[in-house]
Amino acid sequence: MNTSEFRRRGKEMVDYVANYMEGIEGRQVYPDVEPGYLRPLIPDSAPQEPDTFEDIINDIEKIIMPGVTHWHSPYFFAYFPTASSYPAMLADMLCGAIGCIGFSWAASPACTELETVMMDWLGKMLELPKAFLTENAGEGGGVIQGSASEATLVALLAARTKAIHRLQAASPELTQAAIMEKLVAYSSDQAHSSVERAGLIGGVKLKAIPSDGNFAMRASALQEALERDRAAGLIPFFVVATLGTTTCCSFDNLLEKKKNCNKEDMWLHVDAAYAGSAFICPEFRHLLNGVEVDSFNFNPHKWLLVNFDCSAMWVKKRSDLTGAFRLDPTYLKHSHQDSGKLFRSLKMWFVFRMYGVKGLQAYIRKHVQLSHEFESLVLQDPRFEICAEVTLGLVCFRLKGSNKVNEALLQGINSAKKIHLVPCHLRDKFVLRFAICSRTVESAHVQRAWEHIKELAADVLRAERE
Amino acid sequence: MNTSEFRRRGKEMVDYVANYMEGIEGRQVYPDVEPGYLRPLIPDSAPQEPDTFEDIINDIEKIIMPGVTHWHSPYFFAYFPTASSYPAMLADMLCGAIGCIGFSWAASPACTELETVMMDWLGKMLELPKAFLTENAGEGGGVIQGSASEATLVALLAARTKAIHRLQAASPELTQAAIMEKLVAYSSDQAHSSVERAGLIGGVKLKAIPSDGNFAMRASALQEALERDRAAGLIPFFVVATLGTTTCCSFDNLLEKKKNCNKEDMWLHVDAAYAGSAFICPEFRHLLNGVEVDSFNFNPHKWLLVNFDCSAMWVKKRSDLTGAFRLDPTYLKHSHQDSGKLFRSLKMWFVFRMYGVKGLQAYIRKHVQLSHEFESLVLQDPRFEICAEVTLGLVCFRLKGSNKVNEALLQGINSAKKIHLVPCHLRDKFVLRFAICSRTVESAHVQRAWEHIKELAADVLRAERE
Repeated sequence: MNTSEFRRRGKEMVDYVANYMEGIEGRQVYPDVEPGYLRPLIPDSAPQEPDTFEDIINDIEKIIMPGVTHWHSPYFFAYFPTASSYPAMLADMLCGAIGCIGFSWAASPACTELETVMMDWLGKMLELPKAFLTENAGEGGGVIQGSASEATLVALLAARTKAIHRLQAASPELTQAAIMEKLVAYSSDQAHSSVERAGLIGGVKLKAIPSDGNFAMRASALQEALERDRAAGLIPFFVVATLGTTTCCSFDNLLEKKKNCNKEDMWLHVDAAYAGSAFICPEFRHLLNGVEVDSFNFNPHKWLLVNFDCSAMWVKKRSDLTGAFRLDPTYLKHSHQDSGKLFRSLKMWFVFRMYGVKGLQAYIRKHVQLSHEFESLVLQDPRFEICAEVTLGLVCFRLKGSNKVNEALLQGINSAKKIHLVPCHLRDKFVLRFAICSRTVESAHVQRAWEHIKELAADVLRAERE
Repeated sequence: MNTSEFRRRGKEMVDYVANYMEGIEGRQVYPDVEPGYLRPLIPDSAPQEPDTFEDIINDIEKIIMPGVTHWHSPYFFAYFPTASSYPAMLADMLCGAIGCIGFSWAASPACTELETVMMDWLGKMLELPKAFLTENAGEGGGVIQGSASEATLVALLAARTKAIHRLQAASPELTQAAIMEKLVAYSSDQAHSSVERAGLIGGVKLKAIPSDGNFAMRASALQEALERDRAAGLIPFFVVATLGTTTCCSFDNLLEKKKNCNKEDMWLHVDAAYAGSAFICPEFRHLLNGVEVDSFNFNPHKWLLVNFDCSAMWVKKRSDLTGAFRLDPTYLKHSHQDSGKLFRSLKMWFVFRMYGVKGLQAYIRKHVQLSHEFESLVLQDPRFEICAEVTLGLVCFRLKGSNKVNEALLQGINSAKKIHLVPCHLRDKFVLRFAICSRTVESAHVQRAWEHIKELAADVLRAERE
């Protein structure tokens, strides 16, 4: 394909994408296919001679689209949002063309420098502590990661290195293995599974602290675990506090956590993967109070209109990271590109500028308003209950009654395929999660979704009585 | 930005991208800027009100492009190639629009299924052992990772888990920490630094085996280390063999390695990050002989025209990976999206179909031919020497003489900024790497680059004599 054909095909693709977005509401949100549907539809090996672009574009509707879950449909209320905006898509096109791998300053100075400045812009939108910004030439700074899981792992490994160094400085006879055997990390029992995985990868124990009635990790429960473990000869070194859990968007008490950690010389990492975006609104900023911690992370690629992947991580001391990964700057100067990343900050630059802070705030507020609208619909129906406080864009609800009846309701919803939801477990309860996801979701969609859920609930309750 | 504005701006961006690609030869390959150049050029915080698209597109040439290292310029001979092709860019546009996160089958069936089939297509292009393909419903399979570093880490962690289980099954009294303290991984002293980092992250020892005169790891040296370590009570568990090292594109002897590993019950991982793409050509396939190993990885996003990121990894037993990360399928069914990835297989599908296998082979062959052309130019000049065998698209060369004179030559090259190279160290020698990188590089560019290098070499040698 030469450049002039790319001009033509690229414009056709822009129209295809625009048509897809414009017509997405008309597509069934969840596909009808069964596992294994795709393989019989395409050849079992790559063609020797080129296919035409027409062949391929036709196959998209024939082969790909029938198997797509439409994450950007206004009837998609599953998981959490994943960002999608036109400015980010335009930036991605440019990013693909420049195609530099930014593993060092010299590999593409603009890439490294724009990332640093965009992380400062974003940090200021969230009113992060000055220690996290690089503009003051301090010790902290922000960096783009691929996901919150990656950020948690990086933080845990940095904390592990720091703890090992500290303990070996005090007792030089201790081996790394002897220390690692005793290291313990902590998170709430509501934390995302990636925290457990970070512990597995890092080869350290991870303990889940029982959350309170609001699904929050509290100081007393954590302190109890710390004391018990210390008494048993273990070494607490790392705590993950979650702001906006995956299950029900609950918030750990950050100010309390800080007291625990300062006292015990532990690294405190804050995971606000979903909720972090909301902190650009003054009315939600208080949820971030106490963020003067060791590391903080959230995903603009979830709820801030910057398409995947763009996970924002700040650390109080950059040298804690470089120390953990033994990244020698003189080596990096001419290292090869494998661990580098694309020019992801372009997406932030386009989105922040084309929406403006006010536009982004308005977007967050609209989602929160829609979730409260859904909450009030649920509350008006005495057959249903709300299962966790609605703070941002997620509503956890269920039919009063057995798990079985709620499982039947969810199955009814996901078989009808008019809307798409996923469940969660809160303690022993099977709960439905209604997450405001799409950029284009409006009150009318929420209303229609609720009418649909009510109808299916009536069917389920009728079937139960029979 | 609404959909109709996106139609307009998207087409403008297609033209911007096409113009950039068409005119890239006219841009200075390496930028003139100094560290810190960018911050003063842009506001110190995000705008409250939206900027216009015109503002942004104008700033690209004013602020971004002056700081870009043009990786796709035909005068870029640094590092290794990073893939760039129009079909991959078109696929990326579609991928961004669908914007699904494929962390489970249900999250987007087409995404999971196309990836599986594309990994089979690619595996067949490389004539991989049947055990690596999923079409036979065997135990092995392929998966897309973000980078070769990630693949190495995943393999090391899987091997670690497997070793721990095996040893604990034999001696239940052993703790994980007691085992980890004794585990040792091995790679050549020419292996990429990401292998060392994988060892650091995994908390296990990594030993570098001295390579032979051709910069290859040989059985005898490895065997010696294994015996010494076993005698010292350590437990060898993991070997990384590199096919096409970053420094000089040397090849470890795979058939020998297999004998070492089979005998010792160790996991053998093959890292062919750059060189792997060449194995689609029958004349290079012999370099892969012996690939019936535990895991194999290479980066189509380097040399197979599939834009970043797309790193292809195959394992002989999929359950070794799922075991290591304790990924419970019933959990994943409704897990949230954080660790998922975009619809990256679309890029493979577009590229494989629009080039055809023959087109991809022709592309590899052209690069190899150009590197041999450069090699013969170097060999014709008695002032220069070739420092490692030229097998694929990389030529390691230097002026006969001191490191100092070669450092001066490289500095001259990168100050003139007509072409861009990076160096490497081979034993105690400072060596220049000339890597064929750009999709559009032709014989004329290589000839011009060589003329330029000769002129600068003459200056450097003259300055040395004076």
